[in-house]
Amino acid sequence: MNRVFNFSPGPAALPEEVLSQASGEMLDWHGIGMSIMEVSHRGKDFMALAQQAEADLRDLLDIPSNYKVLFMHGGAIAQNAIVPLNLLRGKTVADYVDTGSWSTKSINEARRYCTVNVIASSKGEDYVRVPKQSEWQPSKDAAYIHVCTNETIGGLEYQWTPTSSFDVPIVADMSSHILSRPIDVSSYGLIYAGAQKNIGQAGVTIVIVREDLIGQAHSHCPTVFDYKTQIENQSMFNTPATYAIYMAGLVFQWLKRQGGLVAMEQRNIEKADLLYDALDHSDFYITKVCKEDRSRMNVTFFLEDDGLTPVFLAGASQRGLANLKGHKLVGGVRASIYNSMSVEGVRALIAWMNEFELIHG
Amino acid sequence: MNRVFNFSPGPAALPEEVLSQASGEMLDWHGIGMSIMEVSHRGKDFMALAQQAEADLRDLLDIPSNYKVLFMHGGAIAQNAIVPLNLLRGKTVADYVDTGSWSTKSINEARRYCTVNVIASSKGEDYVRVPKQSEWQPSKDAAYIHVCTNETIGGLEYQWTPTSSFDVPIVADMSSHILSRPIDVSSYGLIYAGAQKNIGQAGVTIVIVREDLIGQAHSHCPTVFDYKTQIENQSMFNTPATYAIYMAGLVFQWLKRQGGLVAMEQRNIEKADLLYDALDHSDFYITKVCKEDRSRMNVTFFLEDDGLTPVFLAGASQRGLANLKGHKLVGGVRASIYNSMSVEGVRALIAWMNEFELIHG
Repeated sequence: MNRVFNFSPGPAALPEEVLSQASGEMLDWHGIGMSIMEVSHRGKDFMALAQQAEADLRDLLDIPSNYKVLFMHGGAIAQNAIVPLNLLRGKTVADYVDTGSWSTKSINEARRYCTVNVIASSKGEDYVRVPKQSEWQPSKDAAYIHVCTNETIGGLEYQWTPTSSFDVPIVADMSSHILSRPIDVSSYGLIYAGAQKNIGQAGVTIVIVREDLIGQAHSHCPTVFDYKTQIENQSMFNTPATYAIYMAGLVFQWLKRQGGLVAMEQRNIEKADLLYDALDHSDFYITKVCKEDRSRMNVTFFLEDDGLTPVFLAGASQRGLANLKGHKLVGGVRASIYNSMSVEGVRALIAWMNEFELIHG
Repeated sequence: MNRVFNFSPGPAALPEEVLSQASGEMLDWHGIGMSIMEVSHRGKDFMALAQQAEADLRDLLDIPSNYKVLFMHGGAIAQNAIVPLNLLRGKTVADYVDTGSWSTKSINEARRYCTVNVIASSKGEDYVRVPKQSEWQPSKDAAYIHVCTNETIGGLEYQWTPTSSFDVPIVADMSSHILSRPIDVSSYGLIYAGAQKNIGQAGVTIVIVREDLIGQAHSHCPTVFDYKTQIENQSMFNTPATYAIYMAGLVFQWLKRQGGLVAMEQRNIEKADLLYDALDHSDFYITKVCKEDRSRMNVTFFLEDDGLTPVFLAGASQRGLANLKGHKLVGGVRASIYNSMSVEGVRALIAWMNEFELIHG
């Protein structure tokens, strides 16, 4: 077995020790003679596991007690519908900040349920920056303000915390940078995140929601996607994605062993700084995102001679640097350096970038 | 490691050789240096895997070419909303047959979207039988007729295929007996099934839908749950539950190695006959379901002296016969003997039943 450095944007690399543990426990979890994926979600074993996973997540993110944690089906894209179905609460307008592909998906889906007011957008600047809060032009009567705090495709990240009034909560899609740094949960009304970047395997979505916001879902909201229903049923109104929750729980424990999110943020800063410094010291590679809005998770860049990009990617792949191709919408190169990516992996990428520039520069 | 005989109703036991393969491939799938859960759903490796899984499922169930196969999020309970949201097609009435707990859940959810006409019910008989088709009183203008062809909690199963006109398709929730026997897919307009019984791990839902029925979803249907959207995107409008699809694919290949569904049905008949014969030859154990409607998958029974049930269950557990407790709604004992349960496991259960009767009878 020869593990590669996997820069996949998602589903993404997981810590090797988490995968090893899962592999070892696959046929017999904790001596019960069954896999954890073979037991009832309502049995004592899985219930205890799910409770521990929630407790560890609460601990890691320091989630206040007036926030509920849900493990839902459907991915972040389902939340693009589930959020307005739950949070409009009789209102007809919601505010959205447009910072790229994922914001746009959220906006388009919300338009099916309400009037969307795009209160700020960097579309006209080819999404190279995050509009500052001072530029936002919020509606008078919005049900909520939606932001995507890390744009996986463009490589933008909020390096600041948006603020709003209690009545107009901020809703944040944090799919691609949750758990990469401490956050102030109390600044948000609702946070959602698909699992397949920093949490675990695709198929489970984490929702953290302030409890006063629930209980007014639209009558057409499928019951299983009514936050109130899921809260009342401990995320088990239907059978949850049990194995995905198990994997998430293993990742949460791994994060705690790493020192939690303060330590994780330091490591992520170190990795991102190494890579952006290398990019900034070269004319061969080009970055487009404004420095203050650069994502620590998804580092997007281009070769000055774009014709060399396939050669760069093929050589990277041969050296065990996998899945570096940029998203088809933007092209170029994208290094997704989530929590599981080691400093060693980033150094190996930089070594290849330098080698490639020496040959072709 | 000492694997038990696991009679869990779901999430349920999986074939040991499938789990062994998954364990062995966890850190390095097919020599790519990554787990299959760590790669993009849009990459060539996972795309090929998903296509193979669909091809194998089509092969096993002999799915006609005018039916589409989807791997969706949300579980069967989400389908209880997704079906009316997609299949009402402008109509306002849907027909439902009520055979127990799962039918009732489907009915209650559909009522949020349309007028539900319960065209037959065995509720008045405590759900001990499946109403014959001759008893059904269908509406004049129903969009579809919904049946649950295996009631996991009560232990009822359709041993016949319902029929309807092309215009009023039969929709079947087959969650707890799909792949246990050959079926005539062309008799149904839509079949759905959660994976956590005979398919794999919880978190993926299989939908088999006749293609002429799609394309008229309700405007409030979340885009990710519009069958048309998912068909156009090969079930990848959002990130699918990739690892759950991988596990399903391993199970499909295991089923083919077993001889497909004809062989599987023979084994399932053998297991069910053994267990029901044992029950029928005893006055100590009581069955309630009519013989012709007994489920081959979920064998529900009671001890004549219900006070002994906890003793029976505790003794079973000590002997490595796990998860036999009946659902809280009905009590008693439930042996879920899905595809993965061996004849040996059923014989071990019968041996314990006989031993227990000798002591306490």
